[in-house]
Amino acid sequence: MSGRRIAELGEFELIELITAGLGRGDQVLIGAGDDAAVLRLRGDLAVSTDTMVENVHFRRDWSSANDVGRKAVAACVADAEAMGAVGVGVVVALSVPGELEVDWFTEFAAGVREECDNAGVSLVGGDLTRAEQIVITVTVLADLAGREPLRRKGAQVGDQVAFCGRLGWAAAGLAVLTRGFRSPRAVVVAQRVPEPPYGQGVVAAQAGAHSLIDVSDGLLADLGHIAAASAVQIELDSAAFEIAEPQQAVAAALGGGNPLVYQLTGGEDHALVGTFPPGRVPSGWTVVGRVAAGPAQVLVDGAAPDFGAAGWEHFGTAR
Amino acid sequence: MSGRRIAELGEFELIELITAGLGRGDQVLIGAGDDAAVLRLRGDLAVSTDTMVENVHFRRDWSSANDVGRKAVAACVADAEAMGAVGVGVVVALSVPGELEVDWFTEFAAGVREECDNAGVSLVGGDLTRAEQIVITVTVLADLAGREPLRRKGAQVGDQVAFCGRLGWAAAGLAVLTRGFRSPRAVVVAQRVPEPPYGQGVVAAQAGAHSLIDVSDGLLADLGHIAAASAVQIELDSAAFEIAEPQQAVAAALGGGNPLVYQLTGGEDHALVGTFPPGRVPSGWTVVGRVAAGPAQVLVDGAAPDFGAAGWEHFGTAR
Repeated sequence: MSGRRIAELGEFELIELITAGLGRGDQVLIGAGDDAAVLRLRGDLAVSTDTMVENVHFRRDWSSANDVGRKAVAACVADAEAMGAVGVGVVVALSVPGELEVDWFTEFAAGVREECDNAGVSLVGGDLTRAEQIVITVTVLADLAGREPLRRKGAQVGDQVAFCGRLGWAAAGLAVLTRGFRSPRAVVVAQRVPEPPYGQGVVAAQAGAHSLIDVSDGLLADLGHIAAASAVQIELDSAAFEIAEPQQAVAAALGGGNPLVYQLTGGEDHALVGTFPPGRVPSGWTVVGRVAAGPAQVLVDGAAPDFGAAGWEHFGTAR
Repeated sequence: MSGRRIAELGEFELIELITAGLGRGDQVLIGAGDDAAVLRLRGDLAVSTDTMVENVHFRRDWSSANDVGRKAVAACVADAEAMGAVGVGVVVALSVPGELEVDWFTEFAAGVREECDNAGVSLVGGDLTRAEQIVITVTVLADLAGREPLRRKGAQVGDQVAFCGRLGWAAAGLAVLTRGFRSPRAVVVAQRVPEPPYGQGVVAAQAGAHSLIDVSDGLLADLGHIAAASAVQIELDSAAFEIAEPQQAVAAALGGGNPLVYQLTGGEDHALVGTFPPGRVPSGWTVVGRVAAGPAQVLVDGAAPDFGAAGWEHFGTAR
């Protein structure tokens, strides 16, 4: 297929490239190829949708097509994890320019399938359209399997705040890439493909978590959502965060700022953070603070953090 | 808000514009505003996703923002109807340029909500991102409520072929709009906002339909999918189609072609077409042919139809 362009193939031929030989889990009654897919769930359905746009959420000179496919699936499935649900299937809507190389398309599809395997979900359908720019929307269908969903609004005074997964790796990677570098490799790779802690949403639910969210806007911003929804104050201890070596290296190389900023404000790693009754934090999770009575805000070492924007907004002039 | 641009508002402010006061059905346990929505279904889940791209699927000088919002929802819910499922919720992913007027955005949201009301589904979530071009992806979550899904592959020799809804109205409207006209108004309105026969998918299932599809690519193309999936020949009778007056008028005004072409090849009205055991066609459905043994093809009056492309493909060079 080398060198061929999307416009040279028909829509159905392209869809066949994605769906040929597609495996499916035992909860998938009908996969891709009919008007709709059909899934059999054990409990309530959790559903979330997530869009990635070329040159807004990814750049083709920074990320391979495989990376982009993996990231699109990972970011979306993380939202289901954050409800304590188990991802069952995803549908992927892809818009691409007609002059795009077919190789990009097939590598993207391979990335989607790889990450579906990692996350334990099935690719069950999608749509393919032409656009001036690559736009990818993934929707995850997840199964609460008889459990109650974990909300943002359930945090209670006295809870411990804990996270699982990586914080600030993608942000450190973005800082490096933005300045034209490609190392430290570990953070660059993390920016290209997040590694959400698949399965830990259910672990949190089974441990009795009171609230949960995935870190997509940055820890402070996302804990701010829990604080607002639960009407509580969240207090973090900076000493509880372990700064990884590559984050130290990036901060030093790029001007000596405090590398904690990456962990507190960086999104896109899709860690899970939540609040637990004291003593109920699962193993593998790191306690970084507590829930207290007070105004709906997030404090670090007892004070409002004073470094720049606390999160990522796509619109607005603040950024 | 008059004259304000999307980029002047924050992402969360914009989302609040869509979701404020949003009603929800009794199967919606959690609506927009958390990491995922949560729905309670009575049976298996049917899910389908559908993208509309500016200047590919709609033009802002032809369609109002309200029209676009309505069409995006209608086209997607029709896919759930085609499985014999009942739409419960939709999630809407919207990508827009920062310079778009906020008024377009709020009118689009109003159209989405209007069509959700028409279809009896709840808007339960979405995503909002920046892009160079407007791209809308709607995903429908539908409930089979204990019934088996209606597949493309179930057609049986001896079945009657019948449709419900409108055929070729949107295509006649497109023909008019493409030539710079705005009348007959009925077909132009149909091009802007389809009217899928909501509820008739379930009616077909309850009547014992063997196969069903929604007409999005054109009747011949979509029946071709049934013929291929079921390995049967489908035979249509041209005399069974009633050509509406505005379709006659458009064909006459635009050069005297056979107006039946609109009905046989026009998509985007999202009629339902399926096959039924003899005598089981529900009232309100029109019988237009039969299922026979033979190669997987669609014949009209015993012959392969000989007018141009039988459907709509987004890629490929034929069109």
